[in-house]
Amino acid sequence: MSKGPVLKEYKNLEEILLDKNLAGLGDAYVNLLYSLAASQRSGYPTGVKVNNRILAEAVRKSGLRKLLPRRIDRHVLGNAAEALIAFAWLADTVTFEDSVEILSEKQDSVEAFTVLLREIWERLDKRDEQR
Amino acid sequence: MSKGPVLKEYKNLEEILLDKNLAGLGDAYVNLLYSLAASQRSGYPTGVKVNNRILAEAVRKSGLRKLLPRRIDRHVLGNAAEALIAFAWLADTVTFEDSVEILSEKQDSVEAFTVLLREIWERLDKRDEQR
Repeated sequence: MSKGPVLKEYKNLEEILLDKNLAGLGDAYVNLLYSLAASQRSGYPTGVKVNNRILAEAVRKSGLRKLLPRRIDRHVLGNAAEALIAFAWLADTVTFEDSVEILSEKQDSVEAFTVLLREIWERLDKRDEQR
Repeated sequence: MSKGPVLKEYKNLEEILLDKNLAGLGDAYVNLLYSLAASQRSGYPTGVKVNNRILAEAVRKSGLRKLLPRRIDRHVLGNAAEALIAFAWLADTVTFEDSVEILSEKQDSVEAFTVLLREIWERLDKRDEQR
């Protein structure tokens, strides 16, 4: 999927997680990912909006919380998930298809996003090691 | 892009345009398409929600309006655009990449969606002729 040159250079993971622009695109991306996963589960097309609370909880469970400043609210936590998931897509670290598949595997939405965030984090770590 | 078996059989274009389930998934899909197109134009990631008014106007301008019942409101018209755009994606008639490219070409959002709807309509007509 050609996404064009919309990614800037990031110093570290924290900078990605706190990028509001990435979170903006990520919001649209995450909703489509989860809507398609839900459509595949139910067998008919359906649209789902992913709640910020779910994403914030997944950031905590994934362990990514510790990379972020102490005093941030749930909204910023949810944005962090959206930003990282969008980054992984734009950087071709985890494809759209892989992401939908990962999300489809877990019934529970917090669990599903936790697994996706961990997978992205792991692949980004490996990529950085190879540099 | 693997979308799995979420499409049912449709009798005709009108049935596609009036499918609320398709419109539900289409809402998420259209927002991502347009967000990525906007990101590519601006050079940084951004999220955009596509207004129902814009989609309704594009349905009128594209000529698709005449396939729909006379007494429907703007909301149903907007849904029709979302449903058709989602159908084209799920049926591999117009890919995600092609759709983003088409949307990127026009500055004006109504124009952009009008061109996309016409392109989908044309390809579906050709597909049906070949059967």
